[in-house]
Amino acid sequence: MLGHVTTPTYELYYWPGIQGRGEFVRLALEEAGAAYVDVARTPGGMHTMMRLLDGEAEGPLPFAPPFLKHGDLIVAQTANVLAYLGPRLGLVPDDEALRVEALQIQLTLADLVTEVHETHHPISGGLYYEDQKSAAKARSAAFVRERVPKFLGWLERVLDRAGGEHLVGGRLTYVDLSAFQIVTGISYAFPNAMARMKRRIPKLLALRDRVAGRTRVAEYLASERRLPFNESGIFRHYPELDG
Amino acid sequence: MLGHVTTPTYELYYWPGIQGRGEFVRLALEEAGAAYVDVARTPGGMHTMMRLLDGEAEGPLPFAPPFLKHGDLIVAQTANVLAYLGPRLGLVPDDEALRVEALQIQLTLADLVTEVHETHHPISGGLYYEDQKSAAKARSAAFVRERVPKFLGWLERVLDRAGGEHLVGGRLTYVDLSAFQIVTGISYAFPNAMARMKRRIPKLLALRDRVAGRTRVAEYLASERRLPFNESGIFRHYPELDG
Repeated sequence: MLGHVTTPTYELYYWPGIQGRGEFVRLALEEAGAAYVDVARTPGGMHTMMRLLDGEAEGPLPFAPPFLKHGDLIVAQTANVLAYLGPRLGLVPDDEALRVEALQIQLTLADLVTEVHETHHPISGGLYYEDQKSAAKARSAAFVRERVPKFLGWLERVLDRAGGEHLVGGRLTYVDLSAFQIVTGISYAFPNAMARMKRRIPKLLALRDRVAGRTRVAEYLASERRLPFNESGIFRHYPELDG
Repeated sequence: MLGHVTTPTYELYYWPGIQGRGEFVRLALEEAGAAYVDVARTPGGMHTMMRLLDGEAEGPLPFAPPFLKHGDLIVAQTANVLAYLGPRLGLVPDDEALRVEALQIQLTLADLVTEVHETHHPISGGLYYEDQKSAAKARSAAFVRERVPKFLGWLERVLDRAGGEHLVGGRLTYVDLSAFQIVTGISYAFPNAMARMKRRIPKLLALRDRVAGRTRVAEYLASERRLPFNESGIFRHYPELDG
């Protein structure tokens, strides 16, 4: 646990206005009660973020937000940020095997998040949704039919094998927080699909509720720091895609 | 460096018949001269792999191949496998900041690999390419126009900032091996697009050649262990997608 030694304030860089991939990092920082700045949501912050993306700082060049700046270190890629923050925020066990397991689950959640994004942008991130709507319908139908059951069914099973309360190591980790976000996001974007899944993922839904009820998470979710879901983010509710 | 202490043989599990994501792990094991078994390519190996995917072993449940079995530990997700193997095979520096940087680049390469897969399967992995060809053409056009220059241009820049010889820490890491595989794969799948990129990524092409010329890598590439690229894998050459 490095969480209680003096540490520079964490600077999170992510697109303002959407939860997106930044939200997985926000949830970890909020649950831990860490001092952090959501830089791009502060005055002048977007400019600072764009300069870092342009390579102004020395060292690792992020490909895209979210990235974290901690002192001089820049850490990009959501799962990598969480693997870095986990030990510092007390959100992953010390044991190497359990850290490896946490990252493995997190990376599978990241794959799922990417697939969620592809449901509304199957052709190109550079086109509007409206310009790829027919491909989006076909992709979403396959996603809801094949991928949601496969991913969430797998997650339920991982949870069950781990004792049913937490995904890794019998205690709260950043992976549980991310699972909360995924289930909440898919419920927002695909309520019909989730209604059909409900009875197959009781432990996962209970985990989501337990995370939402944690003191700091609940306080965060009720605050203005929690952006609402919207149709600029990754989890978008388009009724025509939720068959 | 843990590479020289006694360690159980590494068991790699991946679909036989394609390079796919397994190839990033194979390249690391081959470069290090590590003792490993490519299990699903041995008699009965597919059956063993399917049993592990079905959850027969205790502990972490892989979502999909590739995964590594090392003693009792199962490690899934390509980048996670490489982060686990890196210190053991001497393919990543000891320094935490450099390991974080290595994983960050590897995860961005993983995103690129996923996007390559989406070029021929933009609607569903459960459908044949032939049944999603028109969406594949649209997706590939956007990929070649926007994404290849963005990803490879970024990689060239990362390499340049790191001194031009290696991507991380001034020495060979698993990330260099993966960059070799990506450049080689995209050159196979999209030769026209790569011909247009050529002059913009001289350092990256030189890195590819240096990796290909390393003693153990060259020996591996010439062996039967190196599967050829084919149209069942991730990097597929469909002339109609290479505008």
